Order: sequence, then structure tokens, then C-alpha cells
Amino acid sequence: MRIADHNPVVEALGRPLRLGVIGGGAGSFIGPIHRSAATLDRRFEIVAGVLSSDRHRSMAQGVDIGLDRQRAYGSVDEMIEREAARGSSGIDAVAVMTPNDRHCPVSSAALEAGLHVICDKPMANSVAEARALNDLVSRTGKVFCLTHNYSGYPMVRQARAMVEAGQLGELRIVQAEYFQGGMALPVERGELTPKLRWKFDRARSGPSLVLGDIGTHAHHLACFVCGDQVAAVAADIGALVPTRQFDDYAGMLWRFRRGARGSCVVTQAAAGAENNLILRIYGEKGMLEWQHLTPNYLRHASLGESVRTLGRGDANLAPAAERACRIARGHPEGFRESFATLYADFAEAIVAKMTGVPADPYAQWFPSAADGLHGAVFIEASLRSSDQGGAWVECGAN
Amino acid sequence: MRIADHNPVVEALGRPLRLGVIGGGAGSFIGPIHRSAATLDRRFEIVAGVLSSDRHRSMAQGVDIGLDRQRAYGSVDEMIEREAARGSSGIDAVAVMTPNDRHCPVSSAALEAGLHVICDKPMANSVAEARALNDLVSRTGKVFCLTHNYSGYPMVRQARAMVEAGQLGELRIVQAEYFQGGMALPVERGELTPKLRWKFDRARSGPSLVLGDIGTHAHHLACFVCGDQVAAVAADIGALVPTRQFDDYAGMLWRFRRGARGSCVVTQAAAGAENNLILRIYGEKGMLEWQHLTPNYLRHASLGESVRTLGRGDANLAPAAERACRIARGHPEGFRESFATLYADFAEAIVAKMTGVPADPYAQWFPSAADGLHGAVFIEASLRSSDQGGAWVECGAN
Amino acid sequence: MRIADHNPVVEALGRPLRLGVIGGGAGSFIGPIHRSAATLDRRFEIVAGVLSSDRHRSMAQGVDIGLDRQRAYGSVDEMIEREAARGSSGIDAVAVMTPNDRHCPVSSAALEAGLHVICDKPMANSVAEARALNDLVSRTGKVFCLTHNYSGYPMVRQARAMVEAGQLGELRIVQAEYFQGGMALPVERGELTPKLRWKFDRARSGPSLVLGDIGTHAHHLACFVCGDQVAAVAADIGALVPTRQFDDYAGMLWRFRRGARGSCVVTQAAAGAENNLILRIYGEKGMLEWQHLTPNYLRHASLGESVRTLGRGDANLAPAAERACRIARGHPEGFRESFATLYADFAEAIVAKMTGVPADPYAQWFPSAADGLHGAVFIEASLRSSDQGGAWVECGAN
Amino acid sequence: MRIADHNPVVEALGRPLRLGVIGGGAGSFIGPIHRSAATLDRRFEIVAGVLSSDRHRSMAQGVDIGLDRQRAYGSVDEMIEREAARGSSGIDAVAVMTPNDRHCPVSSAALEAGLHVICDKPMANSVAEARALNDLVSRTGKVFCLTHNYSGYPMVRQARAMVEAGQLGELRIVQAEYFQGGMALPVERGELTPKLRWKFDRARSGPSLVLGDIGTHAHHLACFVCGDQVAAVAADIGALVPTRQFDDYAGMLWRFRRGARGSCVVTQAAAGAENNLILRIYGEKGMLEWQHLTPNYLRHASLGESVRTLGRGDANLAPAAERACRIARGHPEGFRESFATLYADFAEAIVAKMTGVPADPYAQWFPSAADGLHGAVFIEASLRSSDQGGAWVECGAN
Repeated sequence: MRIADHNPVVEALGRPLRLGVIGGGAGSFIGPIHRSAATLDRRFEIVAGVLSSDRHRSMAQGVDIGLDRQRAYGSVDEMIEREAARGSSGIDAVAVMTPNDRHCPVSSAALEAGLHVICDKPMANSVAEARALNDLVSRTGKVFCLTHNYSGYPMVRQARAMVEAGQLGELRIVQAEYFQGGMALPVERGELTPKLRWKFDRARSGPSLVLGDIGTHAHHLACFVCGDQVAAVAADIGALVPTRQFDDYAGMLWRFRRGARGSCVVTQAAAGAENNLILRIYGEKGMLEWQHLTPNYLRHASLGESVRTLGRGDANLAPAAERACRIARGHPEGFRESFATLYADFAEAIVAKMTGVPADPYAQWFPSAADGLHGAVFIEASLRSSDQGGAWVECGAN
Repeated sequence: MRIADHNPVVEALGRPLRLGVIGGGAGSFIGPIHRSAATLDRRFEIVAGVLSSDRHRSMAQGVDIGLDRQRAYGSVDEMIEREAARGSSGIDAVAVMTPNDRHCPVSSAALEAGLHVICDKPMANSVAEARALNDLVSRTGKVFCLTHNYSGYPMVRQARAMVEAGQLGELRIVQAEYFQGGMALPVERGELTPKLRWKFDRARSGPSLVLGDIGTHAHHLACFVCGDQVAAVAADIGALVPTRQFDDYAGMLWRFRRGARGSCVVTQAAAGAENNLILRIYGEKGMLEWQHLTPNYLRHASLGESVRTLGRGDANLAPAAERACRIARGHPEGFRESFATLYADFAEAIVAKMTGVPADPYAQWFPSAADGLHGAVFIEASLRSSDQGGAWVECGAN
Repeated sequence: MRIADHNPVVEALGRPLRLGVIGGGAGSFIGPIHRSAATLDRRFEIVAGVLSSDRHRSMAQGVDIGLDRQRAYGSVDEMIEREAARGSSGIDAVAVMTPNDRHCPVSSAALEAGLHVICDKPMANSVAEARALNDLVSRTGKVFCLTHNYSGYPMVRQARAMVEAGQLGELRIVQAEYFQGGMALPVERGELTPKLRWKFDRARSGPSLVLGDIGTHAHHLACFVCGDQVAAVAADIGALVPTRQFDDYAGMLWRFRRGARGSCVVTQAAAGAENNLILRIYGEKGMLEWQHLTPNYLRHASLGESVRTLGRGDANLAPAAERACRIARGHPEGFRESFATLYADFAEAIVAKMTGVPADPYAQWFPSAADGLHGAVFIEASLRSSDQGGAWVECGAN
Repeated sequence: MRIADHNPVVEALGRPLRLGVIGGGAGSFIGPIHRSAATLDRRFEIVAGVLSSDRHRSMAQGVDIGLDRQRAYGSVDEMIEREAARGSSGIDAVAVMTPNDRHCPVSSAALEAGLHVICDKPMANSVAEARALNDLVSRTGKVFCLTHNYSGYPMVRQARAMVEAGQLGELRIVQAEYFQGGMALPVERGELTPKLRWKFDRARSGPSLVLGDIGTHAHHLACFVCGDQVAAVAADIGALVPTRQFDDYAGMLWRFRRGARGSCVVTQAAAGAENNLILRIYGEKGMLEWQHLTPNYLRHASLGESVRTLGRGDANLAPAAERACRIARGHPEGFRESFATLYADFAEAIVAKMTGVPADPYAQWFPSAADGLHGAVFIEASLRSSDQGGAWVECGAN
């Protein structure tokens, strides 16, 4: 059933789930997206928040986004404690959209406090940290969702469903590309916004900015659609902008566990690039191509047949894709709805935990802590390969 | 300033505007769009509603969408009366998304009660009715917004700004096309949903279903971008599906007041059409093309130059377009945000009325009651032309 | 069988057919196209020619294009007479690419002399002239081909084959559009090339330049694909460029004999237009779209199915389309090959006449003198409708 | 000046150059392309040929393509000797389109005999052989052109001109991709055509079929546009089709001499691929993208500006691109014309040698023997890298 056509949360609980947001304050790009996505399908209401690491700014900005003054908290600890004290009227879950280095500590604190967590990517700045968080998720039994939002697009889900159903046969080639232009100029030499300040600080943004920011998105998208994991990687990572002290480019060859090969190239220093995330996969029977700039379509070319362009809302989509279509065929949906679908999935998983009634199987395709761990392993392996002159490095069992 | 970057409503009033919704209950396509669009920028909160013409369904469905039980009303009159009784905590405005024949009576009642009104198109089922409503808007001094939502897309506003700035020179050709496929089969012979039931009833949907449903959209889009009105029309209107008793096709040649010519063809019976609303305008210096299926882009070809594709979020957009961009360049936005922009405009206009401080001039591009009257005149003129064997019929001064 | 894979001319005659060209001399756009197209498949060799109406220029330019000096003639009469005198080594056919007013007289002279004729469009500048030529073709029994070259594109033939096979069901809407930009400026006020000089002289170019130049192309393309004829037309014809004394724009509503409706808009004054010839047809089961700017593809959308993009060289094309594909799938072909296909058809028809062995049925889809007559009727009816204020005018039995 | 607008060969010599073709007989895809391309601009006439390695088939097929019986030779040696004996009426040049292993020996024999040579790629099956041929070209002073035809497309030349003019600034990323589907199935297990027989025989097709067939095209295209050479490569080469005994896939990371990085992925086993040759290059100021499936366009995105789509025939093209446009803007050209442009260049270079008058500088952009040597070095370095587990291998000074 379409997400838009029922509300299993309200049906089960008589109310939406209560969400506390952490991060995403003034000047944030992703904050407003998270907030409108969380509430789009009325499965969450945002009732509490910590909008900034600065106590006073946090409280003021909480009011600005519409929170009751007493639930616009000054710190994460405060929110967790005071919401717990509310008992059954406290928050059910938190949404973490802080700088990267806070993802793990904040998520861990919330999980330990019995809260479900939806968290921005990258999940962690190291494999060790990622492994610990993944273990904690298992131990607490709480729901954890990582917002690799591209996997929330209906046509990306359609691609996965088609691969899973064998419509491409065994996969042979996987090409991913994610090109952005925001760092084509040496912006790090200009005046920095708070957001750029933490991004350009490796201690906060992680061992490779470009891999953490967009490489993990490309990696997850490829793995998600293929239903496979990267087995080994050979990488060339560095800075395209002269004088730059951090990575802005990563070119990688990869091999998947079930045998597919291909390449993954990502950069934030591509002058003229819009936000070009592209996935092309080829199997023994045909190929699929998805491009973020035209997210409502999926190109499908089969051996010996004419090319088909599947569209969001087409009559013949797989149930997993159909479920994620909200608006009628031919009316474009976008980035916001892709996030909303992860929130809808997250909500169904929480309700399933609460009620013991299993969620719709297609609501279980959201990115997990295990996916976050795979991403961290991929980053570390890629960096090691590049350091070793492009040698193939295995992505390890995890 | 971008809509997303400030909230003039909360800044002025300390709270969002309070909205009552009328229509858009279970099974409605447009209801959920209106509701998420109204709240997307937190300029409105939905606090009251009449979801159905059936009293009991109305109250039940109001609760379903999250209204307090006591503000989930059983009828429009009841909502108007009881909200008025709340004094300063009552609703500020209503959003009308009923069947077409109710647009005018409901909007009129709300205006008379001192409420601002945002209403679905077509505004009226006759010129007489449209003229009366337009007059009432003038008389009451309330804000009225007609949801020709395509004019809310940033790249449509960019097109208008470019025309206004003379970048195309004098306009010569205006081509509009709106093709849908939902009535390609004789669906009227099958089991009818409530929505189809009123659509297929001319007394409720108006004198020409296809012109009311999509013809007025194409007409408004063309007039909006050109900053002009249709002076005369020659039309061929009828049913493409044999045995059909209502119009599903209209082919029109038109002439604009400032001299441009061209054609407008609309149909709901185009098997295979997705939701193809296309506008192409040519002036003495160049042309612009916008297509709804790729709404984030605008094609601009100038004499002697290479084609440019302007994109939502590009650095060089006109202020009116820039204002309506919410998400970063390269992250697609869609149908929902186009509605939200009209709501944001509507809210700014209301606040301007309340405070006496003029709104951002670019917030005043929303479709008005006068536009609704033009649309009604266009429909009547087209029908008359078709009846007269395609003779040119003037669209009259209004 | 593919045109490229056999040579029925050489197989039958032991040699290519011998062609005399008339027109297309220095400064001509279409001359080099005709000549390379005629010889592309080695079904013709160009052995004689009259390149200009000026005797001396004609002979000099004939040598320039590689003719033997003694066959670079000074006039059409001379060529016809002297080639006839060569007996079995004389030309078999002529290709006419003169100014419009010479098409009929020159073609008639050649037919009367027993030559087959391939001629540029428009066939004639009046219905009377067109009818006479059509009758002459019938009377002489010679092959006549009119170079509406768009019908030579493989994907246009695919479209016709699909319509013919009923894949769209009964046709309902036919939209044609042909927009050029070459006359967006008042070029007639500048210095004129010889080509523009005759184009701007109505006595030579015909009653409506825009309809003769491109309107007949759009008309033929639509009729060819639909396998139908225009029954009636309502038109608005005139000049978009102020001060212009000849037509540069025609907007038309049309009705086809089997019931389809739609519009046809053509102009040469569309600033920014490239050479946008577009055909969109909708039937009860689905639609087809072909655009000249991407001629190797054909969009096919069926009710309830995802859109297919058929490509030149695809495995599943109709024999009529397959026959016209020369180069492997994915290697673009263009305008030149579309002309070459008409020459290949023309050659097969001539050989069939010569040998009595019927040609491949798919070689018989080339535009005929009857098509030229239909075109002339369409032009006259459109002009009459426009003069009568857009009244519907029947295209008459012919 | 446009190639199509003058004929420097006939102007200088009073006749076209005389060409002997070697290879390209019955069943060949490339033979007819070469022949129509060579004669398209009337700078060559084909007067002699050796169509097959089989003496009798060669002579018969020579007649089939229109050669005089006495110049349809049985072997290359025979043609060279007998044409030399004709003195000033013998051939000026040969076009080599044999299986790969014959390219070097045949070209060498022709050069030694004083003939100019235009030859299919790959130039050689080893670096040693390539170096020897390159040296021979220098020693003999004859013109040698290698048909990397993609460099003949006007918009590819436009890309090179823009890079050369610094419009992209320093280049940073070079992405090339060439995907074909012809070997997606294990065709080597079926019945083999003569063409496939030599292709699947490594002794004839070279050390890596996929790199020789299409890898060298992608490599040359990238180097041509960038005006740079590959400095080092890290490769993963192998067979995607299980049981296949030869390479059908190569994934490569590369570094250019002036510092750009990127990837190059090529395969002939991509089910569903059409003939997708794509080049995307990014510099400090912007990017260019060219795709073979839409060869008449070039996408140009600059930092802070809207995307431009340059089209063949646009008014503002570089002279090098303008020169290679034959047909008017908006009339598609294709694969055939790209070959013809190399032939036109080749002819101008020959005439320059003959007359001592330098050719148009833009006629000197055709691929040379030095380019062929670079290609051979690239293949060997890639294979060595793949054998060494993806280690970076330098492409060596050559």
C-alpha cells in the first residue's frame, strides 16, 4: 500500500510518533528538509529539539521552528533526561543532523536512553566507532535509520526490485558517479560559515571529506540497488584544487562480492557540476540507469529490446516502488519526498517494534547501522588503497 | 529573500496563520498536497476543517488529518460561525478544495465572514459567477489566491521575469499544450469514484470539463509568463472518445492583446500522456520553453547564441525565481513546492493586509480573482467559438 | 532487406542508373545533399546536369561538381535533347532542385521526354498545376518522387508501420510543429542572396512561402505517418515580423478523414528555433512522438505501460524501418541518409518499371505526385480559411 | 572555411585524389562507411582496391563496389605495383581497413611505395610495431591518418578548441566511457562470421580486443580534446562473460601529464548499451560533456552560469568546428560525416605536401601515427597494470 494512503502509526497508536531533532539549526541546509520530511506523512510530529551546540542559540532556534518553549532544549543530555521524565508523553525517537563527529556519540546516547534514532550520514568517522554503534543498535534492539536518502526515491527502489527479481541477470558492471561543484574554488581560503568550518576540520568531518559527504552516498546507492557489497577497492584520492589540504576527489575501481566490477568517481570540486549522482548497472540481460537530476525516471535497456523509461507512478512498478509514490504520475516529486520515505519506513519499523506486528516488508529497505558500518569500511579501505599506490584492498568481513 | 530563509508571518504575528481547510477528504488527490504545501514553510498551521459534504464523514476525516476533535467541523457554515466565535484565536483564512461548483459559494461565504481565501481552480463555472466573486474580493478587501500552482514553480517565475525584462523582445508566438491520459478510456462507463462522479456531472464540474480541469491551467500559465491576456480565440472542442457525452479535447488558436499568436491544445484523453504541460514562447529575440515533466529547468534560446538551460538554483536567476527556490541547486523540487509557494505568497499578502507593511513585490505574483475571471471568460469564448464553427471570438474586456 | 545490403539496380542492370541534376548549383544548400544522397547507395551515378539557369554558370558549375565537360549542359532542354540522343547511354532520370516555380515545368518536360523524375517540394505553386503534373505522371507511367525527405528517416517509417499495424488503435490527435528561425529578423530588408531573392518573390516561391517551404513538410509527415489525409483545416496565416510583406507563420487546426483532430503550427520567424520539426500522434491505445533534432529515436507511450524509446537499429523494428537503417545501432545517421533513402526507393521503382519485377513493397513508401497534389490542396485550403477568418475549409476530394 | 564550401584538392590538382581501398569487402561494416566518406566531399575518387585477402573474392567484390575490372586487384602487392606502373594516373593514397594485424604491414608497404595512407585503428598490435610505423612515416614524409573518427565530429573539435582557448582553465578530471553490447552474449560460442573470426583470434586482433576495438577510441578522444597525453594508468582488465577467453572489459584510472585525473571504462559486454561513447572533462572554470548518441551537441557548464548546449551550426562556434559543419543548423549529421572530415583533412594534407602550400591549420587535427603510437603504449601499460594488480604504470615517453 502507498505510504500516502494509510497511516499505520496513527492507526496503531492513535497519534503520530514524537520526534526530537538534534542539529539542523539556523543556516543548515538539511535541517528544514529533515523537519518537513519527518512530518510530511504525519507519522511524526516534532515536539522537542536541540538546534545548536550553543545552549542559548539552541533554545531560541527551537522556538523559531515552532517548538514549545519548554521543549526547546539547550543540550542533548537535557533533552534526553527531561523527555524521559515525561514518561509516555515524551519523545519516541530522535533525528540526528549534527556535524559528523557527533553522529555516533549522540546516537549512542539516545539509543542507550531507549530512543529510536534516525541519523544523517556518514554514520561514523571510523570503522571502530561504526562497529561499536552497530553493536549498540543490536544490543538495544532499537530502530536505527541512516539517511542515505537517495534510497528513498521510488525509482531507486524500483531498480533494486528489478535487480532482486533477476531482470538484469547476474550483475557485471556497476558505475557510480557523484559530482558536485561547491568546492571547485578554494572556498576554504575565504570566510567560513559555521557549516564549512566543521567540514574543513578533519577532526570533525572525518578522514576524507569527499568520501564522507558524497562517497558514502554513491557507495550505499550502488550496494542498495545491487543488493550486494563491495569486496575490494583500488583508489586514487586527493585534492584537485591546488593548495587544498583535504581530499576533494576520489576515483575508485571496485569489485563486488558476487563478481561485478566497475568504477566509482566522486568529487566536490567539479566546476559546473550540478549535483550529478548517477548509477548505471549492467547485468547479463540488460542495464538500468538512474540519475538524480531526473529522479522520477529509470532507464531500462534489455538485450534485443528497445529502451524503456520507467516513470514514477507508472502502472507496472514493483510494490516497493509503488509504495513510495505519493503524487500522481506526471507530477514531479523530489529530494524532500525521498527523505520523507525514509522517515515513513523508520516510523513503520518503530510501530512494529511497539506492537509486535511486522511492518510491510517494503518498509524495511531503509539504510541500517550495518550499512553505515559498510560505508565506514569502504572509506577506510579506499584511503588505504590510495596510500598504497592504488593496490586492491579488501573491504573485509563485517 | 528566499521564502525558505525567513518567516515574515511569525516575525510579524509571533505565530503562523491559522487555516481552515474545506474539502480534500478521503480519496482526494489534491487534499494532502494542499495540506503539506500550506504548512511546508510554517506560515500556516491547519487548525480547522470541513473535509466532506457529509457531516459525519467530515468530522471523522478531520480528526484523521490531525485536527482537534472540536475543530473538525460538520459543515462550512458551522466552521465559519464557530471559528468567528473564537475571536482572535479563530482561523485567519480558508483553503477551498471542493468540487468546482462549490468554489464560488464557499469562497464567497468565507470572504463575507472576513476570511482570506485560497481556492482551487477553476474559480467559477460561469463568467457571471466569476465576475461576482471578483467584485466581492474587491469589496471585502480580503486576499484571494487561486491555485494555478504551475505559476509557483521557480522556473516559471524566471520565465515571466525574463519576458518582463524584455529578454525575448516583443512576443510573437505562444504555444501551450496540456495532455493527460486519465480519460483515454471511457472511464465514465465504469464504476465511478466520488471524485469522478462530480467531474462527469456538468452541473458540478462546469460547462467544459477539459477546459475547467486543465485548459484554465494552460491559459493561466501562458498569460502569467507573457504578462498578457488572450484577446480572441478560435476553438475546436469536443470528445475524442466515441460515445463520450462531455468534452475531453480542445484545440484552440489564440491571439494575445499585444499581438502574439499561437495555439493551445489540451486533452484528458491522450493515451500515453503523462501530465505533459508545455509552454513555448517566442519573441523577436529568442524563445523560452518550460515543460512540467522537467520543472526545474527552463530552456532559453536566443538568436545567434547557443541554447541555455537555466536551472533552479542557478546563480544568475531573477529575484522572483530565486525567492521560490528552497533546496540547493541540483536537488530536485516538484509539484508540492509549487503549491507551497502560492501558500507562502498568500500568507505574505495576508500579513501585509494585517500590518500595513507592503509585501515583497515578488510575493504578489500569485493568481488572483481577476485571473480567475479571465479564465472563465476564456472558457466561455472558446465554447462559443467552437459552437460557431471555429470563428474568432473576442475574450472581451473584463 | 536493408538498402545497404544489396543493390537491386546493379543486379538488374549491371550498372547504376544515370541521373541528370537540374539546379543545386553554387550557394545551394540542397544541391550537395541531393548529389551525395543520390550516389550514397550506388544506385545512381550523376552523369549530366544543368546547375544554373544561366547558361555559362551552368556549364562551369557542372564541371565543378565533377561532370564530364560535354554533359555539363547550359539548359534543361539541351540536356534532355542531347541525352536522348545518346540512346541507351543517356540519363534514366532527372533530379529537380530548382526554385519552386520551375518544379512543374521542368518535371513535366522530363516526363514528356520519357525520363523518371525526383523533384524537390513543394511540387507546384497551385492546385491546378499540381493536378496537371499528377495527371501527367499517370499518363506517362514514369516514376515520380517528391523529396519530402523526413519520410525517409527510419524512425518515421517505423512510426507509420506501427500506426498501420494498429498499435495505436484509431488515431485521435495529430500535432505537427515545424519551427525555424531563419526569418526571425527582417532579412528581406538586407542584401539578398540569389536563393533569398526567389524565395521572397511570391511569383516564384508560391502563394505562401512558409507553407511551401515547411508547411508542406509538416503536412506530408503527418499524413504519411497516419496513413490518412487532412479533411478540413481552419487557419491563421500571416507575418510575425512587422512590416513583412509575406507569410512567415501559419497556425492551423485540422481534421483528418478518419476523424483525428489536432493542430499544425509552422513558422520561419521563430527566433531561437533550430529546425524543430515535431510530430506527436495519439490513438486510442497510445502515442508516438518523433522529433527531427533526435531523428534516430521514436518515443512510444502506451496506455498503462512505461514509455519506450525505439532506436534506429533496434532488433525489433518493422521491416520498413529496418530496411532504411544503414549504419549499426548507436552510430547516428542524419539528414543526408533520409534523402538517400528516397533515392534508393526511387531507384527500385524505376528498376521495377524497367524489369517488370515488382519492387520491395517497403520501397514504395516514397512521396508521390498524388502526395504533392494533396500538399497543394492543403496550402490553398489553409489560405482560404485564413482569408475567411478561420472558418473550416474542406481539403476537397482529389 | 567550411570543408563543404570549397575543394582545395580540385582547385590545386584539377581533379580529386585517387584512392585505392584495402579491405572492407562483403560483410564489412566499416567498408561502405569509408568509401562514402572518402568521396563525400569529392576530394577523393576511389579508383582501385583490394577488397579481400582471397584473390578471387577480392577482384569480384572490387567490381561490385564499382571499380573498373582492371583496377579491382587480387592483392595489395599487385595493386601497389600496377598502380605505380600507371605513373601519374595511378593512385595517390590507400585506405587500409583490413583486420588489425594487417594494418602495419600494409600501411608500411604503401608508405614505402610512396603512397599516402589513411588507416583504421588500432594502428598496431604492439608498441614495437607502432614505433616502427611511426618512424617510417617520418622517414618517408608521407601523410598518415588514423581513423579515430570521433575526432572528426564538429562538436568534438569544438570541445578541443575550447580547452585549447583556456575556457575550462586547467583540466582536473577526465572521464571517458565507451560501452557496447555486441559481446554481451557468448557470441564466440556460436557460428562466426569472418569478421568475428579474426576478432576472436588474439594473434590477429591484438593483445586486448576491447582495448584495440574501443579502448583506443576512448583514449584518443580524451587526449585529443584535452590536448594532453596519459602519463600513467591503473587498470582492471578481464572478461565479464564467464568462460570467455579474451578481454571484454577494462576499467582504468588515469593521470594526465598536466595533472588531470579520472577514469576510463570500456566494455563490449554491456547488455543494453547502444554505442555509448561519453567524454566528460572538468577544469577549474567549468566542464564539457559530449556523448556520441547526440553528437551534434556539446554541453558546457561554467562555474556560476547556466548550462549551455552548443549545437553544430551555432553561430558562435570555433573555426575548427565551424569548418567541419556541412549541413545547416538543426539538420542532423552523423557517423558518416565524422569519417568524411578525416578524409577531407587527409586530402588537404596531401595537397599541401604536393604543392608546398600549407594546409588550413584546422585541417591538421586528424589523428597521426604518433597518436597511434600513444594508443599502443596505452594498451600495453594498461595490460601491465592489470597484470600487476592495479599498480600505476607509466605510459612512457614516446
